[in-house]
Amino acid sequence: MNPQVKVKADDTRARIMDTAEALFRRLGFAKTAVADIASELKMSPANVYRFFSSKNAIIEAICQRCLAELEDRAWAVARSRGSAAERIERLVLEILSYHKENLLTEQRVNDMVLAAIELSWGAIRAHKEHMRMVFESILREGVEAGEFEPINSRETSRLLMISLVHFCHPVLVAQYLQDQEDLEADARAAVRFLLRAITPRA
Amino acid sequence: MNPQVKVKADDTRARIMDTAEALFRRLGFAKTAVADIASELKMSPANVYRFFSSKNAIIEAICQRCLAELEDRAWAVARSRGSAAERIERLVLEILSYHKENLLTEQRVNDMVLAAIELSWGAIRAHKEHMRMVFESILREGVEAGEFEPINSRETSRLLMISLVHFCHPVLVAQYLQDQEDLEADARAAVRFLLRAITPRA
Repeated sequence: MNPQVKVKADDTRARIMDTAEALFRRLGFAKTAVADIASELKMSPANVYRFFSSKNAIIEAICQRCLAELEDRAWAVARSRGSAAERIERLVLEILSYHKENLLTEQRVNDMVLAAIELSWGAIRAHKEHMRMVFESILREGVEAGEFEPINSRETSRLLMISLVHFCHPVLVAQYLQDQEDLEADARAAVRFLLRAITPRA
Repeated sequence: MNPQVKVKADDTRARIMDTAEALFRRLGFAKTAVADIASELKMSPANVYRFFSSKNAIIEAICQRCLAELEDRAWAVARSRGSAAERIERLVLEILSYHKENLLTEQRVNDMVLAAIELSWGAIRAHKEHMRMVFESILREGVEAGEFEPINSRETSRLLMISLVHFCHPVLVAQYLQDQEDLEADARAAVRFLLRAITPRA
């Protein structure tokens, strides 16, 4: 494909994804058909199918785009200023605020997320591993700086992720929000509690 | 109501719940009607409705019975022999094995659990508070025995529950099982990691 055609194709893919996402949010995932997306874009359904083999393929692509954005934000936090402990706290708050902003403001969006989780399990697994590496990288710097004990950063990053799932799993964040608990305060308290496990005592 | 009639009514309620649970597991929650439950029991639907106002009321009662059983098992662990740390580990493994046994062996059962969670949110909230008290009671004994630092047991029990949700939330347990990870090993590692936060260093 020549470069100009490729740019145009990427652009069309992105437009289909944007329109589909807006419709999924408005009508719900189950109630949106590829024909609706095509008609909103003034395209033929056949043209949409040239870019995505199915509605499921569209939601998978949307899901992957969201996860990539979250990964970028996570690395930005990892590279920001501050002690390792501060950056871990900031990272968890960033993940939390990402879910609050993007995903779970209403039931219909929640349905979309559930469909995405169901269909993109492989992508989500890869994303979890990616996020674990962000935690590991901050932990490693904390160990080098003497801020944390000489722990195994890889295993500790895994345990941290398990222990923080309450704030990083979109379904749990939604449930928590429904109960109107103060998620940010709890996330801060949980991170501080967890980091006590690896911080040398004065 | 005279005592004998009351016993008989409780017995009928329990039989309706048992039969409904078996049908929900076999056919799925959505596909089971009150008429199916009645016919299995060789009763009229009107008779079932004398005991439960709706199918939702039946699943709520089943859910509450399950939660009460889990609470009994939790208190049994709290009262068992061993250090506070050992009992907390045992408690988490007990909750995990409860979910593995009872709830999530197949998709249909999972649907039943999701319906129960949706409908019995109040009961689940109360259950979470109950379980938190079990954790608090073990923590308090650990503090008194000098096994843990002089922490606030109430707040710490809350943070422990948040951090252990991966092993105590039926939906997450199901997801984890799907990935065939070694849940028991992870639960043990997570508990040991968390308790380091409150254990005096040698």
